[in-house]
Amino acid sequence: MDIVIGKGKIARRAYGIDEIALVPGNCTLDPSLAQTNWTIGGIERNIPIIASAMDGVVDVKMAVLLSELGAIGVLNLEGIQTRYEDPYPILDRIVSVGTSKFVGLMQELYAKPIDPELIKKRIIDIKAKGSIAAVSLTPAGASQYGQIVAEAGADLLFVQATVVSTDHFSPKSINSLDLSRFCQEMPMPVILGNCVTYEVALNLMKAGAASILVGIGPGAACTSRGVLGVGVPQATAIADCAAARDEYYQKTGDYIPVIADGGVITGGDICKCVACGADAVMIGSPIARSIEAPGRGYHWGMATPSPVLPRGTRINVGSTGTIKEILTGPARLDDGTHNLLGALKTSMGTLGAKNIKDMQQVEVVIAPSLLTEGKVYQKAQQLGMGK
Amino acid sequence: MDIVIGKGKIARRAYGIDEIALVPGNCTLDPSLAQTNWTIGGIERNIPIIASAMDGVVDVKMAVLLSELGAIGVLNLEGIQTRYEDPYPILDRIVSVGTSKFVGLMQELYAKPIDPELIKKRIIDIKAKGSIAAVSLTPAGASQYGQIVAEAGADLLFVQATVVSTDHFSPKSINSLDLSRFCQEMPMPVILGNCVTYEVALNLMKAGAASILVGIGPGAACTSRGVLGVGVPQATAIADCAAARDEYYQKTGDYIPVIADGGVITGGDICKCVACGADAVMIGSPIARSIEAPGRGYHWGMATPSPVLPRGTRINVGSTGTIKEILTGPARLDDGTHNLLGALKTSMGTLGAKNIKDMQQVEVVIAPSLLTEGKVYQKAQQLGMGK
Amino acid sequence: MDIVIGKGKIARRAYGIDEIALVPGNCTLDPSLAQTNWTIGGIERNIPIIASAMDGVVDVKMAVLLSELGAIGVLNLEGIQTRYEDPYPILDRIVSVGTSKFVGLMQELYAKPIDPELIKKRIIDIKAKGSIAAVSLTPAGASQYGQIVAEAGADLLFVQATVVSTDHFSPKSINSLDLSRFCQEMPMPVILGNCVTYEVALNLMKAGAASILVGIGPGAACTSRGVLGVGVPQATAIADCAAARDEYYQKTGDYIPVIADGGVITGGDICKCVACGADAVMIGSPIARSIEAPGRGYHWGMATPSPVLPRGTRINVGSTGTIKEILTGPARLDDGTHNLLGALKTSMGTLGAKNIKDMQQVEVVIAPSLLTEGKVYQKAQQLGMGK
Amino acid sequence: MDIVIGKGKIARRAYGIDEIALVPGNCTLDPSLAQTNWTIGGIERNIPIIASAMDGVVDVKMAVLLSELGAIGVLNLEGIQTRYEDPYPILDRIVSVGTSKFVGLMQELYAKPIDPELIKKRIIDIKAKGSIAAVSLTPAGASQYGQIVAEAGADLLFVQATVVSTDHFSPKSINSLDLSRFCQEMPMPVILGNCVTYEVALNLMKAGAASILVGIGPGAACTSRGVLGVGVPQATAIADCAAARDEYYQKTGDYIPVIADGGVITGGDICKCVACGADAVMIGSPIARSIEAPGRGYHWGMATPSPVLPRGTRINVGSTGTIKEILTGPARLDDGTHNLLGALKTSMGTLGAKNIKDMQQVEVVIAPSLLTEGKVYQKAQQLGMGK
Repeated sequence: MDIVIGKGKIARRAYGIDEIALVPGNCTLDPSLAQTNWTIGGIERNIPIIASAMDGVVDVKMAVLLSELGAIGVLNLEGIQTRYEDPYPILDRIVSVGTSKFVGLMQELYAKPIDPELIKKRIIDIKAKGSIAAVSLTPAGASQYGQIVAEAGADLLFVQATVVSTDHFSPKSINSLDLSRFCQEMPMPVILGNCVTYEVALNLMKAGAASILVGIGPGAACTSRGVLGVGVPQATAIADCAAARDEYYQKTGDYIPVIADGGVITGGDICKCVACGADAVMIGSPIARSIEAPGRGYHWGMATPSPVLPRGTRINVGSTGTIKEILTGPARLDDGTHNLLGALKTSMGTLGAKNIKDMQQVEVVIAPSLLTEGKVYQKAQQLGMGK
Repeated sequence: MDIVIGKGKIARRAYGIDEIALVPGNCTLDPSLAQTNWTIGGIERNIPIIASAMDGVVDVKMAVLLSELGAIGVLNLEGIQTRYEDPYPILDRIVSVGTSKFVGLMQELYAKPIDPELIKKRIIDIKAKGSIAAVSLTPAGASQYGQIVAEAGADLLFVQATVVSTDHFSPKSINSLDLSRFCQEMPMPVILGNCVTYEVALNLMKAGAASILVGIGPGAACTSRGVLGVGVPQATAIADCAAARDEYYQKTGDYIPVIADGGVITGGDICKCVACGADAVMIGSPIARSIEAPGRGYHWGMATPSPVLPRGTRINVGSTGTIKEILTGPARLDDGTHNLLGALKTSMGTLGAKNIKDMQQVEVVIAPSLLTEGKVYQKAQQLGMGK
Repeated sequence: MDIVIGKGKIARRAYGIDEIALVPGNCTLDPSLAQTNWTIGGIERNIPIIASAMDGVVDVKMAVLLSELGAIGVLNLEGIQTRYEDPYPILDRIVSVGTSKFVGLMQELYAKPIDPELIKKRIIDIKAKGSIAAVSLTPAGASQYGQIVAEAGADLLFVQATVVSTDHFSPKSINSLDLSRFCQEMPMPVILGNCVTYEVALNLMKAGAASILVGIGPGAACTSRGVLGVGVPQATAIADCAAARDEYYQKTGDYIPVIADGGVITGGDICKCVACGADAVMIGSPIARSIEAPGRGYHWGMATPSPVLPRGTRINVGSTGTIKEILTGPARLDDGTHNLLGALKTSMGTLGAKNIKDMQQVEVVIAPSLLTEGKVYQKAQQLGMGK
Repeated sequence: MDIVIGKGKIARRAYGIDEIALVPGNCTLDPSLAQTNWTIGGIERNIPIIASAMDGVVDVKMAVLLSELGAIGVLNLEGIQTRYEDPYPILDRIVSVGTSKFVGLMQELYAKPIDPELIKKRIIDIKAKGSIAAVSLTPAGASQYGQIVAEAGADLLFVQATVVSTDHFSPKSINSLDLSRFCQEMPMPVILGNCVTYEVALNLMKAGAASILVGIGPGAACTSRGVLGVGVPQATAIADCAAARDEYYQKTGDYIPVIADGGVITGGDICKCVACGADAVMIGSPIARSIEAPGRGYHWGMATPSPVLPRGTRINVGSTGTIKEILTGPARLDDGTHNLLGALKTSMGTLGAKNIKDMQQVEVVIAPSLLTEGKVYQKAQQLGMGK
């Protein structure tokens, strides 16, 4: 299984979700019988979908809507929402600036300091609607604002960076976050990520993660692989981290759900993530396409406003339907981006999977979606290119 | 042969027809000596091609034309033809609506209930011309309208869904179809599908299928793989199901032909399906391109009008020739989409295959049609892009 | 090495020249020291390049020019040149007709019968200039016109079809050509093709071929793979047939050169064909791009005018330089399509190959030229697409 | 591991940097702790990046700027800079000529003889600014101008051709360069390249190279693979040559750094080259995109002006930022082409690599960036194609 790249350099072949497909088994199921519920940090949800902590994806209103629909929306506590009392004029500027000035504007807008009072206010506003207050901080932010988030009564805290580890070296001047102690001290469940390997996944679970986020580099608005060369194709990353989850569960009896984060565009992508072993998915662009999304049809990555090394592109994803249509239908589009829950249930029915645990066991084939000449021709025609 | 996607997740590599090519052997044959006849449900045909039960592909007129040419056209009994006395104004609307309103219109038009009288009328109209009345129902439709179809005297009944199995779970409120009993009770041969695996193919044969349809996800107007993540590349699916057919034949003496359904665009695709083990192919878009097709140059999938989860895109395939030119030539195009029978016979001659059984045994190579830079450049030039 | 496509269907992986690259060895050579001469049917040539017997590529004038430059041009004796006394008005029509009417016009123009007197005249005209008269017939044509060609004094006769075999079945009404007897009876060397396998290559050599043509389906103006599903990627086909040549040489002492036919666009392609084992290449489109080519910037396949199953597309390849610039430089383009001999010599120098036999032994790597996102972007920019 | 292309033709699979990605390990590092310094010919630099000796990339001013930033710029001593007293009007012509006349103009402009006085002048001008004078000659040029370069006091001499070897055959009339003697005679360190194999890398080290350049065929402005068929994908070439370096170091105690040359577009590409074993990278197009680059937004290869076989294309790469922004940031673009050093440090932090030697050991996965239909669609949208 080891592949020799060159003398002394061995590598393993990793697989992306674009390279796999799911194989129907011997029985099928009426989609209405497919159970999609899952539990994170003691909270049960009917929809195994979490909206990413991105400024174009989740604001207070979206968090409330998602909570009511049976899903979860995570609010980014280090973005526009906690730097500006009224974030909407800022979002207007982000959305309307030209491509050439976008990065500079983002760097300027995100230079404004975070206001701890706004952290509290946003959490309280979500709680006031009876919704699940799921929020996100970077490790550095967690170190600084963790206490405030705890006091404001957040239900779930996502501590998230491109790559996290339990073994982080930093200059003495920087107060590095001890993930293990942090998980212990916080009153609410803490979700940690992102990671892509069996070992790190296991380490994060041992550190006390209520769930882990799996995925480095696969997402549309993220360019980790281009900028940093870093990434593991998602099918392999999910399967490896799911193996860590199962191992940890066998040893401790604690089931730490695995959330596949990044690269999901269609309902089929969700199905394939679960089939590789995920308990739920975190998605950005599919939610950014909802009419209610704060990005108003635009989507951009969390590393975009970095003052020295911006990563991630602003993409015009368009507004194609309501968040309800996108999550639970009825679909108004036929390309797999609407009624994501319906797609999951239909796929489970097709595959004979009664619940998420069944779905994690379905047969997978390697089925590269290689672009053939014919497909390029067809696609070019659909795009209105050529004659 | 098993590939490790990640710890504990094993997959098999499956192959599509785009990834294979056929190898000339030691002898060749004049194409006029190639015999392409085959038998389905006791009916012998000279052309191993069946037109898909899609509203843009087959109407009564097309079913008659195809029957006269030596092929078969299957009429969809749950589409426009059985919901509207005069389907042509409806087809006009489908074809002329803009892309953005297409899905909504389809959902509206297909909400009209099926009229059992129209089921009878369409079958009788085909029979009145002395043609083969081959019709199609979903399993749910078969349960409801099977008796009417039998009374109307249909020759062949296709019971078809994206995925079927002999072991289907449904809520007690739904009257689930027992495929085995249904095949036994119906007076005409029943064709079942679709399936993609050896086990399900064998189960459907044991249930009494007169033929099975193989293919999930490969077709141009179908987006099962995108929406549901489900699919098996067609070369592998055909080979596996053909092995089930051969196994079943050895044990029972009953030869249940395998029909490859989906993803066929050119004559070469048909040749490759047969070389993988198919007895015949079911095709949609190549027929939709005929001047006589009810879709008038448009083609769309059967799952498109789903009220909650539409799948399948409407594609402008154009009208490029008569159905006769497309099936038996002479060809007016040089791209492999005209004279499909001629292409099959010429290919068989080239490969030295005297009949369909010989053709199923020809040598195959894995020959990925990877897109190279040069080919994209060339294709772009042919499309008139660039300078 | 055998790959399982599905139960009971085994295939071998074949490689195309786009998938390989050549590896520099431990020594290098000044290009002026690289010897590119080769011998076919007792005739020695300095340039291992043969222009295809296609109506847009070779006419009498081009055959003479190529012969003078040290190469060979093969005249198609079943095309425009032998059906029309003055072929140039006909070529004008082929070149100026619109795409939609192209196939129909070709079918009409090639319906005119071949005039045996013109066969003689073309051969005599080439001989009159002191040039090598290399001509081409199909097996059926060889049966009918072989004697005339012999009488007219052709130097080399190519008997060529998409696929030939020594074991051909045809109806009794058709007078099938016995290749073995034909080679024996003809006074000039007979070159046979095309083939792609070790066994057929060996059979053709045993039948008396002075050289064999290798290649089915790889060329730009040929669509055998799309229309018929037939083809073997060229690197594998050449290597297999070269092995037959070496085997035959060891047993008989006769060295039957292998000509790689099809799919060559650049000098690099020629180098790779030789590195896989070819002694020479037959090329169409690179010659069609010369100012002197009868196709005046257009190129089309030999199967295009088939009355029932036309195959092969007319491509606007443009006129980019003189035939001298294209074959022996100096190059006016930097994309590898000019100075093909210079490219071969430079490549041989780079690889330390002193002659063609050395070049057949250079190290090869599998190096798929997969299209990456970056390359598509770049290519799109070069084409002037986008911003 | 050996792959059979055809009977008797064996090949090895080689990998490109587009096909790999880097895997985060168990620990992470604050980027400020990542040490990127390296040493070449006794000169230590903080940035392991060398600007290519190309006329559109490095002039005296750029060499000085790069030296001041902690990198190295190599001046081409056989280009515009040593043929013309004032090269800027010449560069103006190169940049403003139309595509169709580009090759001809280049051939004309580079026909002017090299002026040895200008070789001295350029080196002295760089030294006068206190900068590192790194210069480049071909083997033939080294033979002729080596002494002058030595006298002018260059700090580093790159002797570079598409492919070099220690075992070169040439006609007696040509005075071939003995690399071993040359390295010994020159007073400054001599860097040799390019090579791609273990054996040749070892031979060059034995010949006295102070460093070796690795890479044949991978770059954007180079078409070696198209024109000559020659090339080895870069990940494999680097790993093989790095193994030669380690072997040579173990035996002799001399550490000869490996410079990966070609094909680098983003920071991620640099990270991947180092992860395969490189000590530094040589880059052209990323530097050509700086406002200060002599190519003013254009980039072309060194083999372009060849009088008989021009290779390499002129690409409009645009001017996207200052050389400081491109090398050390802050980035104004989010696509990985700005702040290359920051990207390397961030990647090293992510991967837990404290220095270049650590980075050479990080885990690599094979992760083909296959183009999927979705990505082409997305990319086409980003380019503003289609609707």
